[in-house]
Amino acid sequence: MTTGPVPAPSSPAGPSPAARSLADPDTPFAVVDVHRVRRNAARLRARADRLGVALRPHVKTAKSLDAAALLHDGTPGPVTVSTLAEAEAFADAGYRDITYAVGIEPRKLPRVVALSRRGVTLRVLLDSTEQATFVAAAAREAGIALPAQIEIDCDGHRGGLRPDAPGLTGIAGILHDAGCLDGVLTHAGESYFCYTAGEQREAARNERDAAVAAADRLRAAGLPVTTVSVGSTPTAHAAEDLSGVTELRAGNYVFFDLVMAGLGVCDLDDLALSVVVTVIGHRPEYGWIVTDGGWMAMSRDRGTAVQPQDQGYGLVTDLSGTPVPDLVMTAASQEHGTLTARDGAALPDLPIGTRLRVLPNHACATAAQHQGYHVIDGSVGTRAHTPGIEAYWPRVTGW
Amino acid sequence: MTTGPVPAPSSPAGPSPAARSLADPDTPFAVVDVHRVRRNAARLRARADRLGVALRPHVKTAKSLDAAALLHDGTPGPVTVSTLAEAEAFADAGYRDITYAVGIEPRKLPRVVALSRRGVTLRVLLDSTEQATFVAAAAREAGIALPAQIEIDCDGHRGGLRPDAPGLTGIAGILHDAGCLDGVLTHAGESYFCYTAGEQREAARNERDAAVAAADRLRAAGLPVTTVSVGSTPTAHAAEDLSGVTELRAGNYVFFDLVMAGLGVCDLDDLALSVVVTVIGHRPEYGWIVTDGGWMAMSRDRGTAVQPQDQGYGLVTDLSGTPVPDLVMTAASQEHGTLTARDGAALPDLPIGTRLRVLPNHACATAAQHQGYHVIDGSVGTRAHTPGIEAYWPRVTGW
Repeated sequence: MTTGPVPAPSSPAGPSPAARSLADPDTPFAVVDVHRVRRNAARLRARADRLGVALRPHVKTAKSLDAAALLHDGTPGPVTVSTLAEAEAFADAGYRDITYAVGIEPRKLPRVVALSRRGVTLRVLLDSTEQATFVAAAAREAGIALPAQIEIDCDGHRGGLRPDAPGLTGIAGILHDAGCLDGVLTHAGESYFCYTAGEQREAARNERDAAVAAADRLRAAGLPVTTVSVGSTPTAHAAEDLSGVTELRAGNYVFFDLVMAGLGVCDLDDLALSVVVTVIGHRPEYGWIVTDGGWMAMSRDRGTAVQPQDQGYGLVTDLSGTPVPDLVMTAASQEHGTLTARDGAALPDLPIGTRLRVLPNHACATAAQHQGYHVIDGSVGTRAHTPGIEAYWPRVTGW
Repeated sequence: MTTGPVPAPSSPAGPSPAARSLADPDTPFAVVDVHRVRRNAARLRARADRLGVALRPHVKTAKSLDAAALLHDGTPGPVTVSTLAEAEAFADAGYRDITYAVGIEPRKLPRVVALSRRGVTLRVLLDSTEQATFVAAAAREAGIALPAQIEIDCDGHRGGLRPDAPGLTGIAGILHDAGCLDGVLTHAGESYFCYTAGEQREAARNERDAAVAAADRLRAAGLPVTTVSVGSTPTAHAAEDLSGVTELRAGNYVFFDLVMAGLGVCDLDDLALSVVVTVIGHRPEYGWIVTDGGWMAMSRDRGTAVQPQDQGYGLVTDLSGTPVPDLVMTAASQEHGTLTARDGAALPDLPIGTRLRVLPNHACATAAQHQGYHVIDGSVGTRAHTPGIEAYWPRVTGW
């Protein structure tokens, strides 16, 4: 379903009413390059079109109605959410087709039922007889269908049942009897550790095969399967054949990050999220430049620590987004970041008050440290200037 | 200065108006045991009294007016802040003696001046001639004193000047000429890696000695030093002699956490912050219990990873706070936590829907993942029941 109005862009005012450029808001703050978001969105939309599947972006990374509006060419199309707070915020904005991709538990059912009664097709996820039984009971009690998907484990990464698990058809049967069986969903979590294009293609093939095998098994048992959902940012960008799959999910691609660049899924030029920080000190005896952006601004996520190229807490660029060669954020306390030069390179001369941007390891985690984003358009003007702020996009918070 | 009204406790309503016990709010959510906060506060207050120094708690951990009100026996006493947003929120609540303990940069001076004009003694921190020069200039231009402290490096941990650094007296002279010299401040960051009581006492002695040496050097140069400020949670609890020191800072102790317990600074029974999560799945083939509390609820902080006993993402208790033996949160994705049994212990039988609490590695980081805290009083009733919720304490957010 893609009906309903496009969410209106937020006011450019936001919390810094006077902010006109990246020189204005007090640091640290998160900045999003809308040009890169549009480009990242168009790239995956084109892939999904070519592969003949629907695209259901996961909005957990940006948690922003404004960012999500760009993922479907302006329409409130199908989305995936990681919290019921996201589901409610997107429902309020006109979204009517939402998958809540975290295993359901009984206490959350009243909010699921309430969303369904508002006309939202809210798909829940489960992988046990226990869950299928209480979802079916809740649907019967409420007198409505609560569409449910069975989580399939394709690579031993997190939740789900293997496609050949003995309990699979029993769970589907319980759901079907209550009018709740929607389909199957899997997520190739292990693809975050695939460092070659070949491994990523293989992970995508494996993910597709697991979902389709589970769907085929259910159909062979006479159980109708509507949705066959796969996706992760790496596999969504690597899949070559999604026959039998109905929809593709991915979330991180809206911003991308150093982990994804380290996997080769994107280039550094695709990273749409960064954090603006200010130099507040120097420790030449240690080779340190100290900034006011610590883990409170960047998160504690060190996803690249397990990659061939460890990027510390992030790579440093100037305010226009041009990388400062060999400068890495290597340590963080709550409100202090330490920048050092890589491999014995000279430390650049950056006086106190200099503003820089830091590209994060993990966009989902860094974005979560902020209440919203100052938005720039990196396609405007030359890269030599201080980018102007076009808008402020608030985030959905809480659960 | 300790004048002004006690900040009023927040409404028990908070974002979950119907929440009456830890069984009610949707998970995950942060919970604070006010009994433990009071006990932790009383312990350090008694220490400071014995040592003959003022206590200036750092409010960066809880970022809560309600929590801070307990640290000074109900009066808005001196506090340390990590952001100007905290300074402004505490000023609004009647606090008039605030130290902003992150190096100052020029763009933040207008907010510093504005707070000073409201009658707040807002002390800023610096460690360079450059900063002293612009602070002095801003004070002259505004026609007010902007009290400044010089950061002293006692252990090579972060910012500051060594007590014998050539530039120290010059910086102090620039400040003094503008009526801005308040004193010196140091922070024994390395004490977070001291695993014996003896090492912590030595770190406290070293911290005190560095601050007093710097102050003595300035006084010998004819420069008046009012404040000699030391502190970190480990050294504040280990110091035996603070002669020459005027005030003690510490922040983490309001909640404590597994890192502090691992250092022996507190017991597990002192940990006042935890996160309530719900079991949403089981993977018996891997030995996993899956919950709805991932890194979004716990943070990515893995501070105990470098300690002798790695506590994963946290230790698990039941809803009353009683530890579940050998159950550890060992992995996290955004909204999923994985619990495993330590050292081959049997996995307990915890059906879907079971609520648990997870004790965090690093209270500052975990607290920052939440908009506020549901507050219980662990001293009430037996530990067998589901604790009742007494209040909701919102956090100060942003910078």
